[in-house]
Amino acid sequence: MNGALRIGMDIGGTKTEAVALDRDGTVVAVARIATVGGPDGVVGTAERVIAMLSEQTGCAVAEFASVGVGIPGRIDREHGEVHNAYNLGLAWLPLAGRLADATGLPVALDNDVTAAAIGAAHLMRLDGVVAYLNLGTGLAAGLVIDGAPVRGAQGVAGEIGHLPVDPLERPCPCGQRGCIETVASGSALKRYWPAGGDHPGRVLLAAVDAGDVEAVHAFEQLVRGAASCVRLLSLTLDPHTVIIGGGLRFLGSRLLDGIRETLDGWAAQSPFLGMLDLSGRVELLAADSSAAAVGAALASEGRRR
Amino acid sequence: MNGALRIGMDIGGTKTEAVALDRDGTVVAVARIATVGGPDGVVGTAERVIAMLSEQTGCAVAEFASVGVGIPGRIDREHGEVHNAYNLGLAWLPLAGRLADATGLPVALDNDVTAAAIGAAHLMRLDGVVAYLNLGTGLAAGLVIDGAPVRGAQGVAGEIGHLPVDPLERPCPCGQRGCIETVASGSALKRYWPAGGDHPGRVLLAAVDAGDVEAVHAFEQLVRGAASCVRLLSLTLDPHTVIIGGGLRFLGSRLLDGIRETLDGWAAQSPFLGMLDLSGRVELLAADSSAAAVGAALASEGRRR
Repeated sequence: MNGALRIGMDIGGTKTEAVALDRDGTVVAVARIATVGGPDGVVGTAERVIAMLSEQTGCAVAEFASVGVGIPGRIDREHGEVHNAYNLGLAWLPLAGRLADATGLPVALDNDVTAAAIGAAHLMRLDGVVAYLNLGTGLAAGLVIDGAPVRGAQGVAGEIGHLPVDPLERPCPCGQRGCIETVASGSALKRYWPAGGDHPGRVLLAAVDAGDVEAVHAFEQLVRGAASCVRLLSLTLDPHTVIIGGGLRFLGSRLLDGIRETLDGWAAQSPFLGMLDLSGRVELLAADSSAAAVGAALASEGRRR
Repeated sequence: MNGALRIGMDIGGTKTEAVALDRDGTVVAVARIATVGGPDGVVGTAERVIAMLSEQTGCAVAEFASVGVGIPGRIDREHGEVHNAYNLGLAWLPLAGRLADATGLPVALDNDVTAAAIGAAHLMRLDGVVAYLNLGTGLAAGLVIDGAPVRGAQGVAGEIGHLPVDPLERPCPCGQRGCIETVASGSALKRYWPAGGDHPGRVLLAAVDAGDVEAVHAFEQLVRGAASCVRLLSLTLDPHTVIIGGGLRFLGSRLLDGIRETLDGWAAQSPFLGMLDLSGRVELLAADSSAAAVGAALASEGRRR
């Protein structure tokens, strides 16, 4: 079979998704399984999805070109190590080395949000400056300029969730107050709207429609926080496009419309913002997108171990 | 003489500085004159410094390779036009075309802060991600990644001065409240410390030393605002270096020390910030630096008109 197929995978707290990309960057196979946590669990999960892709494509494992992995936590790309991926039960894991030993393939790691930004820019065919706003359990952004990711000096580029600029000044586990993540994230919903249970994003709009005052407030804070991220990214990097991704993107058009209306409201009060067409830059990542897995495969080109 | 000499100039509200760079990017001549405002005044000022460089280098005007101009305002690089440079008395000026007609040379325009960022990264030999924080009459940042400037979709990349995130929520002429520029800029000093007169930056430290309570407060707000910019740039772009430039850099080591101490204080309260060594990334642009003129010359390579 085609030895140039690249594997990309997105290892999340709940599920792991993997894709095989051909030379042109087209997805030719997809596999999804539940993630098993802990060091051995994560390595085993990765091995299993690779085996599934091998079966689907008829390409022997050793014949794939490379493996790119998008994973939460602080990523040491140089050494192929994952640090502090707590929702995967990982304090430290030399994932690239272990997976390279198991498969014989070159393996590259990337932060999952950066991988999603690379993949979304590719799949949506976006040029120029692209900011990807991940509204997940946490809040962070990925940045891509002319197809190349911006990772920064310590790999924290895009960690805007811990900018302490929200007027509510809620305490954040990071030690600061008013971090944007304390209003615009799944963890914020869970903490400040406990009626939503363990997966508040899934029940939020139904509760809003039922007239639940607390739910309405939680949704408003989420929308305002996300809009403030778009403004922040726009005045910092002036992106051509801001993509809304992450699990909370399943709130769909009401989330997108809310963000746009908030931005338009601010623009109406500020001639400066009014010139910038902030609301016109915002787009929603497709619900069924494999952006992070695709981006991880593409990023594996640049660094192999 | 050497036909490869490139001219760069920084047209400011008070003075215009121009340099001639050789092929290696070394400054071989410098000229400085007072800026004359208005469309004809600005074009004439630019022509005069070019003539001065011609005389200094013995290179006929027509033999220079290019002219790069760094200038305040909103810059349309495509058409070589300056918009809204109010402190130069310019609503609109097709500066590149007029200067090209006058000199026969290719002319490129850039925002003055972007030009300074390019020049500072070059002069300080900084690789990776470089953020240049301009503390001038206004507040803005310039961004350079691996030597290339980030200009963005509408040329407003780095306009962080109009992020409305300051807890004092002072009104800003842009129509928002709490813009960082309302605390960390020359215009903020002038407005909120009127005792400082027309050039408050020049007398601020003397007033602080004399125990002027209002001056102490103004200096504290300036330092806190500048530190919040460093944090903002760091969590957004994760720069290897944040350079403090602009006219207020003449406050010198007390400004730099104040910014570093503020960042260290925040880091002491947040393990997350503590990991990032924010204070270690901050450097001050040399007082005698021609960063903006040098950067304008370098940027003229990429675009000529």
